[in-house]
Parts: sequence; C-alpha cells; structure tokens
Amino acid sequence: MELKKELTQTAKNAAKAARFLANLSTSEKNRILEEMAQNLEKNKSAILKANKKDITHAKSSKLSSAFIDRLTLNDKRIGEMVDCLLSVAKLPDPVGSEIKAWDVPSGLHIHKVRVPIGVIAIIYESRPNVTSDCIALTFKAGNCVILRGGSEAMHTNQAIYEAINDVAKRNELPEGVINFISTKERRAIEVLLKLNEYIDLVIPRGGEGLIKKVVTLSRIPVIKHYKGICHVYVDDYADLNMAEKICFNAKVQRPGVCNAMESMLVHRDVAARFLPIMLKQFKEAGVEIRGCALTQRIGKDGIKKATEKDYRTEYNDLILSVKVVDTFDQAIDRINEYGSHHSDSIVTDDEDNAKEFLRKVDSACVYVNASTRFTDGYEFGMGAEIGISTDKLHARGPMALEELTSYKYAVFGTGQIRE
Amino acid sequence: MELKKELTQTAKNAAKAARFLANLSTSEKNRILEEMAQNLEKNKSAILKANKKDITHAKSSKLSSAFIDRLTLNDKRIGEMVDCLLSVAKLPDPVGSEIKAWDVPSGLHIHKVRVPIGVIAIIYESRPNVTSDCIALTFKAGNCVILRGGSEAMHTNQAIYEAINDVAKRNELPEGVINFISTKERRAIEVLLKLNEYIDLVIPRGGEGLIKKVVTLSRIPVIKHYKGICHVYVDDYADLNMAEKICFNAKVQRPGVCNAMESMLVHRDVAARFLPIMLKQFKEAGVEIRGCALTQRIGKDGIKKATEKDYRTEYNDLILSVKVVDTFDQAIDRINEYGSHHSDSIVTDDEDNAKEFLRKVDSACVYVNASTRFTDGYEFGMGAEIGISTDKLHARGPMALEELTSYKYAVFGTGQIRE
Repeated sequence: MELKKELTQTAKNAAKAARFLANLSTSEKNRILEEMAQNLEKNKSAILKANKKDITHAKSSKLSSAFIDRLTLNDKRIGEMVDCLLSVAKLPDPVGSEIKAWDVPSGLHIHKVRVPIGVIAIIYESRPNVTSDCIALTFKAGNCVILRGGSEAMHTNQAIYEAINDVAKRNELPEGVINFISTKERRAIEVLLKLNEYIDLVIPRGGEGLIKKVVTLSRIPVIKHYKGICHVYVDDYADLNMAEKICFNAKVQRPGVCNAMESMLVHRDVAARFLPIMLKQFKEAGVEIRGCALTQRIGKDGIKKATEKDYRTEYNDLILSVKVVDTFDQAIDRINEYGSHHSDSIVTDDEDNAKEFLRKVDSACVYVNASTRFTDGYEFGMGAEIGISTDKLHARGPMALEELTSYKYAVFGTGQIRE
Repeated sequence: MELKKELTQTAKNAAKAARFLANLSTSEKNRILEEMAQNLEKNKSAILKANKKDITHAKSSKLSSAFIDRLTLNDKRIGEMVDCLLSVAKLPDPVGSEIKAWDVPSGLHIHKVRVPIGVIAIIYESRPNVTSDCIALTFKAGNCVILRGGSEAMHTNQAIYEAINDVAKRNELPEGVINFISTKERRAIEVLLKLNEYIDLVIPRGGEGLIKKVVTLSRIPVIKHYKGICHVYVDDYADLNMAEKICFNAKVQRPGVCNAMESMLVHRDVAARFLPIMLKQFKEAGVEIRGCALTQRIGKDGIKKATEKDYRTEYNDLILSVKVVDTFDQAIDRINEYGSHHSDSIVTDDEDNAKEFLRKVDSACVYVNASTRFTDGYEFGMGAEIGISTDKLHARGPMALEELTSYKYAVFGTGQIRE
C-alpha cells in the first residue's frame, strides 16, 4: 500500500509538472541540458564509484561477462553520455512546430501542431547510459520522465540521476520533471504500469522477456522495441559484387545490434555463382553458417543444417541462417513470415522487383541495394534516437524527438457556430 | 478452449488477409465499396426484419427508450449507412501516399510512406451503423477488421455484415478481410484482447464502462474515444455578443454529443454584464444551470448549486455547469484539471490571451472564437471519422482514414554499406 501511494504521488507530480514543461522555451531547455552535461562531467568520480559497487555486486552474483561489460562505465562511456546531452541540446525542438495548416469551408483556420506527450515511463535493464540518454530526449521533447532501471545498476543509475536532477533543482524546475524510482521492491513495475491516469506512455528498453512482461501488465500504451530478425535477399537480378559487400556488412560490421542481418535469402538462379564466394568470406570472418539443403551442398563442409527455429532466431552474434529460394515471391513471403518486421533489404538491378519488394515487405524499414545496418536515428538524419520501434502504432522504426511528441489542433475562428 | 481456438483462427486469417489487402489497388477497393453499398440497399428488408427481432427482445428486456432509439433502424438510417460506404469510396486513399522524403549524407534516399496498420478490432455497443461505417473506413485504409458488436444488436449487425461480406466473397477476397464475431459467449472480448500476436489495434466504441473494460483486459494497443467535458471560456476581452452565440450553440445545438459544451467559464469582470442575458437564453431553451455562488447570485432563482462532481460531469443533455473565474490563468488551470482534454474554446478579442490559451490548454482541439461543436472529421475536412480520440498516442482528435494507417520507410541505395 505504501509503495502504491508513493508511486501514485510520483506519477501525479509528473503529470502536474508536465503542464509546466510543455511551455518551457527552447532556449531554456537547451541551456539546462548543457548544464546537465557539465554537472554529469563534474560528478564523474562519484558515478564511477557507484558503478564500482554495482560491478562488485554483479561479479559476486556471477553475472555474465557480457552483462558486466554493458554495466561497466569508464571515462569514455561517461564522455559519450555527456556528448549525448550536448548534442540533444543542439537538435531542433519539435514542440510547437507545425505539422500542417489548412482552411475549411466554415471559415475556420486549423493548425496541427506538435505538443509533448506528457509523462513517459522508461523501464530498462543494465546499460546505465539509458538513464541520461532518455532524460535528454524526453526533456527536450517537453515530457516528464519516470525512470525505472535494472536493480543490478541501481547505484550507478542513481548517481547519474542525481547529477542531472541537481541541475533541475538548481533551475527551480517543479518537482516531478525528472523522476527516478529507487525502491528495491520488484513490484514497483507492476504498480507503475497501472497508473494510466497519470502516465501517457511506457517504453521498455531491454530483452524480449522484459518487453513481454510490460505488455502483459500494462494499462498504459506501450511502444515496443522488439528484436530485429533482418533479411537481405539477393535477387536473380542482383549485382553480385554489390550483394557480397552488402551482405558482409549487414552481418559482420556489428553483429550484436538489432539491425544486423540474421538471415540471408538467395535466388536459386544465382546461388551457385554467389554462395561459394560469399560463404568463403563469411568463413574467413568467423561467421557460423546454418543453411538449407542446397546451401549445405554448395558450401560443402562445415555448413550446419538450419532448423525452423534458426530462421526465426535473432542471434546477435556471428551466426547466419541461409536459405535458397525458388522465386522472388517466396522471398517476400518468407520475410513477412519469419522476420520481425524491422529492417529488410533486396539487392537487385530490376526496378520492378525493387518496387514490389518495397511495397510488399511489411517492415519498418525496407531497403533496395543497401545494408540493413542503416536503420538508426543518426543515419536517418534524426540526430538521436530512443530506439527502433517494431510497433505500427504512433512510432515505427527509428524513434527520435518528433516521435516523442503528440499533436493538437489549434483552431482560429471569427465567431463560427455549427448550423 | 473451443472459443479461444476459434477466435485465434479468425485473427490468424485476418493477419494473413491483411498482406493481401495492403496491396489491393485503390480502384478495386472503391469498386468493391460501391458494390457493398448496393448490396446493403438490396438487403434492406432482411436487415429491417433482423432489426425487428432485436427491438422486440430489447423491449421485453425493458431496455431504455434511448437505447431502443439507438438500436432502431429505418429506411432513412439504412440510407445513411449506404451513403457512408459510397462517400468513403470517393475519399482519397491514404495507402501509399508519401508523408515526406529526404536524402541523407550516406547517399540513401528515404521515403516515409503510409501503409495500413494491419488488423483492427472494433468493439462496440448498440448502434448498428457502426458495423457498416467501420467496415467502410478500415477497408479503404487497407486494414482487415474484426467486429464485435453488442449482444442486443446481434441479429441486426449480423444481417448488415452478411450483406457486405457477400460482396467480399463474390469478389474472391481472401477469407479474413472482414470478420464478425457472432458467438454469444461474453468471454469472447477477453479472449480477443489477448491476441496481440495477430491484432494490431483495438478501438472500443461506446460508453466509459466498455472503454475501461477494454483498457484493463487488453494486451493490444487501444485507441480510446472517451468522453468530452468541453469548456467555453468567456474572457474579459470577449465580444459578449459573439460569446452568447458561441456558448448557446455549443450547449444547445446538439447536447447529446461529445463536442457539446458541458461547462462554461466566465471572467469575473464581465460576469455581471454577460451572465444575465446568457442565462435567460439558456432558460428559454430549457437548459438547467448548475452554478457557482456568484452565478447563483447573478442568475437569481432557479440556479442550482454546482457540486465538484458537476464540474467533472459529461451530461450529454440540456444541463450546464457555470463557474465565474477570477483570472485568465484560473480558467486555463480549471480546464486542464476538470476537462477531458477533448475540445475547449476561448472567446476573446485579445490576441495574446488567444495565443496563450491555444498553447496552454492541453486538449485535442483548442478553439479561439468558435463553437466546440466543430470537432468532427467532416468539419475538419477529413471526409469521415471513426471517432474523436482522447488519446495522445498515434491519433488525437478526429480520427479518419489517415489515422487508420501506419507508415514505413522505403530506402533507396546504390550499394551503401555502414562504415
């Protein structure tokens, strides 16, 4: 009961503060973001000290080395957090910008303008930079934020939050603009997700388990950043030289991210020419191949058989499933069926196939003759991102400042009444 | 278990059919919509016969006369349903239209284009026209629909559905494009709302109870069309003659709808001049006034005292709460606190107050010098509407064809790989 009361008060304060923050000027927001960056830098040693505590605890709890790597801060990583705050300060403010404007026959003049969403809860796992990155983005878009980080990073997150929130206090922003849930009670998430009266949106950032949990428990709208099972399809009209470069890049350049290729499809008519060279390159780069029967035959030794599950797996690693398809249509069907509707690419010189692929593949980002690795807020020219939405509602694909806003209609009349 | 299996199959079919429908041409969709209109007209007597059954049952169940009125069909009402199908056929198709396009430094050319959302479930209460109106709008925007109407209108809804779906069958559209849940089991809604794997969006259309139930049970994103507690604020700089006309229209022209005024705020400095004339007009129109102490004093006899609850009530009737405010800021605070963020208007000749009101009032539609009654898809130039969203995510305010779409990024490259 205490917990519910406390979290309800936090959410209420945030909802109230949201009215203030919605009207804070761009220059004030930018000045405060820069001050936050400075104070984060200034509190570096305190943050690193808090981080040590978390790391010690994680080691004694025998958490994986990958986990500990994500948790660990150092000068460089804190520098990146500072840079994020500074770069968000430099981005254009979406709040108040006009989406469109038009007149209607009654003589009313209608403006559709961007406004903040209101209160956004972020539930995240181990990476401590999420704390400061999410504060930067939500604050710039005029939203109050409620942060709930993973318990394993609690000391680190709290230290980051305090360094940033000190600036909010010093600038006399109302209580509730930036909120951090520090209780150890695991039930906090469940309670938070029922506060739909005050919280407008929740964004879970983490593994599939976390996201599914949030969807199951939430009465608040959720924007999900699920996994990326991304495909590159090498068409029978592909420039095979270009296809090699794109497939290699999509798999190898950074295999641990959601826009990396997990499955490669090759048209039957080019498989015998394309696969031997491609598979050799992958082998040299240490990529494990799991292929269909034909891929196994062409690739000879060392090609494992791909299971149904392989074709639906996000490896986030140097592993790739490969399938030879009989037709262009089969490629499209497989991508829509086995993929995660994130990012998929076709390599082809045939304009009709390119257009049909773009139209029929039901993914957030569909590419012609480019690596899937470009699905990213920076690469898309949005300056930053809070993640890649795999939802179709509100925001799809890279989600940045504009996607952290809603809109309202401002309507100018001269005494109009409805007949 | 049977029910779950059956509904899962329905949702699966819809998700599969959605891929087909997303690529059906505009001219085909329009031709089919026109044919649906014709077949609805042709099956008028069967629909009226089914409607009689529902009405007889409603009467024997002693349902209210307002309820029975909403349920009742006649030639005119079926004519309006036919017209809706025909007018939606004439509206521009949002699918495939370009939202924006730009180039990025890597040389990629990015198009942001509208695509259907996919599968939309509509859960609604007694008005049978929702069946055909929602089919028209979702179909035109390329979405498969799953309809679940109120049990009291089951025979009517089924007859309307069959007349329309016959056309889908005759045109050999895949099974699953238009779906109607006819089971009597009340648990159907609960089961449906867990099928987030196949259904992309649910829109409840009905009273607050229904909407709250859907929000509580759903794992699928919900767009809510909650109540309208709309305000008109008469500023101290108002043209009082204009204010009278606007307030009268906003309350009296059609009191039963969500964009009618439920609460009138008047600045203290003009209350003594404005209220006597205004209250007299309302009295003559049969409007019951519930006012603050000052309103009671000015209005003399017959003004009931407004309670806290009155100021938070959507009457949908000829009742109005009235409050005299001391300042412009108090008016804004009250609207944000007591209103439902739907539609609110200021009457003023002061440009600064107008602009500040537009900026600070956190509602879907904010008006200057016009009646709140204009919040409507037709009046906003959208041609039709599925309702007025009181949400901030995805769609806010009048929700029409564009709001029934998502988007994707179609990206054209020339071999780009990520460095």
